[in-house]
Amino acid sequence: MQKRIGAQTVRLEQPVIIQSAASTVGQKEGEGPLGHYFDEIEEDVMMGKDSWEQAESCFVAQTMELALKKAELTAKDMDYILCGDLLNQCIGSTFGIKEMDIPFFGLFGACSTMGEALSLGSMLIDGGFAKHILCGASSHFCAAEKQFRFPLPLGVQRPQTSTWTVTGDGSVVLSKNGHGPQITEITTGKIIDMGITDSNNMGAAMAPAAVDLLLTHFQDTGRTPEDYDVIVTGDLGMIGHRLVIEMMTKEGYVMDERYTDCGLKIFDHNTQDTHAGGSGCACAAVTFCAYYYPKLLSGEIKRMLFIPTGALLSADSVQQGLTIPAIAHALVIESEKEAAQ
Amino acid sequence: MQKRIGAQTVRLEQPVIIQSAASTVGQKEGEGPLGHYFDEIEEDVMMGKDSWEQAESCFVAQTMELALKKAELTAKDMDYILCGDLLNQCIGSTFGIKEMDIPFFGLFGACSTMGEALSLGSMLIDGGFAKHILCGASSHFCAAEKQFRFPLPLGVQRPQTSTWTVTGDGSVVLSKNGHGPQITEITTGKIIDMGITDSNNMGAAMAPAAVDLLLTHFQDTGRTPEDYDVIVTGDLGMIGHRLVIEMMTKEGYVMDERYTDCGLKIFDHNTQDTHAGGSGCACAAVTFCAYYYPKLLSGEIKRMLFIPTGALLSADSVQQGLTIPAIAHALVIESEKEAAQ
Repeated sequence: MQKRIGAQTVRLEQPVIIQSAASTVGQKEGEGPLGHYFDEIEEDVMMGKDSWEQAESCFVAQTMELALKKAELTAKDMDYILCGDLLNQCIGSTFGIKEMDIPFFGLFGACSTMGEALSLGSMLIDGGFAKHILCGASSHFCAAEKQFRFPLPLGVQRPQTSTWTVTGDGSVVLSKNGHGPQITEITTGKIIDMGITDSNNMGAAMAPAAVDLLLTHFQDTGRTPEDYDVIVTGDLGMIGHRLVIEMMTKEGYVMDERYTDCGLKIFDHNTQDTHAGGSGCACAAVTFCAYYYPKLLSGEIKRMLFIPTGALLSADSVQQGLTIPAIAHALVIESEKEAAQ
Repeated sequence: MQKRIGAQTVRLEQPVIIQSAASTVGQKEGEGPLGHYFDEIEEDVMMGKDSWEQAESCFVAQTMELALKKAELTAKDMDYILCGDLLNQCIGSTFGIKEMDIPFFGLFGACSTMGEALSLGSMLIDGGFAKHILCGASSHFCAAEKQFRFPLPLGVQRPQTSTWTVTGDGSVVLSKNGHGPQITEITTGKIIDMGITDSNNMGAAMAPAAVDLLLTHFQDTGRTPEDYDVIVTGDLGMIGHRLVIEMMTKEGYVMDERYTDCGLKIFDHNTQDTHAGGSGCACAAVTFCAYYYPKLLSGEIKRMLFIPTGALLSADSVQQGLTIPAIAHALVIESEKEAAQ
């Protein structure tokens, strides 16, 4: 069977099962519109640790354990673990999983990391190299602000175009066999750099990458937006979401109410002071695990196009006046019934 | 065919060809014992750019182009690009490849990154998802010192246990078909943390990960060190290399002169003032591409066990007094003739 079905898209020979999905978030996320969907809401953003970075690792460890428990599996059953985060040298992930004793591939895709983990994980399983893979992504508002912008105690005002990094971790167990929503196709993004340099407007920096990916996906598969119940980008927020609609309209695609963004879903713009919306690796990861996964499981959503988006900047690149390259990765995820048809 | 042959090892159904290998290094590496093996030696460590980080991206771009040229292929022929580096948020890689227009998976495995790229790249090809994949890893002495230790202009003395980050990039083209050395088996490492906190002694921090990987590999495959012409770790340097021999001896394995380390090969300890040896993502990558690849190509080396090693620390984790988790990934690479037998 030919697995490559287009320039950037592959179709799995046998759909890969998302056997479980778990999410842990901070209090602010718990107070948002998706509050009652999350598995665990942590009141203490420090998780009892001495630093925000170590707290993020606790979110990782706790959520991964929960994903295993929900799948009724243990770390010993996992052939690989694939995860990443925004912190320098990905210490949120490495310190979070280092006791788990699972062969590890560390990923860096910025906020597209959950898409990268699901993509590579699915291909490793469909390629015959694994039965079970643990995938996840995490971020922490305080650690991200300190690292990418300003230390929180400075109290620097945030511009209205900025997004709010989600605190939490979303993790899933991918399996060769079993029951659950299924990953059927993967479109892998290229780096797109439109020359934007404002690190407080990452929605604008990432929107062109999401558009490039959407156009490629529709071209590769011969589909249109109407073929999906929902199309969900990762963390473009209000500005990026609007830009995607505008740019896609120019390309002849109608992105109607079936298109939304995790950064819009997770916070209440009117009451939570999060400006342009949510962002961070955890934004797409926890929104998928908490909100969309159950709807795919129940069949309420039959076919979803899930597109985590990432801005590939660092504090150094920003300080050196460089542009913000961006990327997006897409997964076609179908309810069990839909995929069986 | 069963591809999993042990707890952490897979055997590819069809060996993956390393169709080309390219290396670019800085002047210091060019003055070392491997000087005449490298494809390109850059006298200007800034590569004409304004920063060390941007210079690293030039090494990446230039070496990747050379790997393509040597394979007589273009970026358009590549299904994926897999690479990573040590810089915060992997900007060495992302800014290096952003114009190449190839679907991209960003990796973070610290100095084990070349092993991670070759592992995932091989599995994606053997899984039927790609015909050609560009893999690489880079590092830059000045950028790494600034980020992990002290800004160079401070002139801080380096302890004798410290290693010298290699400046350069090593990249290869992996192909489904063609001629060249072949990747046949992959053993993927777990994170090993023995509680070492001295970031100026990364050889000691990484050696236990290399040992764990070696023991697992020999157990999974039923082989011994004698089954390989060479066994080469990534960047353990003098201290880590000696520790591996000691620890393996205790486990009943004789690691004789067939075992060496890229960190020992690349610099002359007596004349180059590099203390414990070479390190950095580029250490294993350029040493493999420049020195070992031609020997596999000619058949002088028939079967190699290549084990890039990584220390998963960050400046933050060090400043917070945390330990240094480490990882190692192994590839069995055979000359074309050997693999055909």
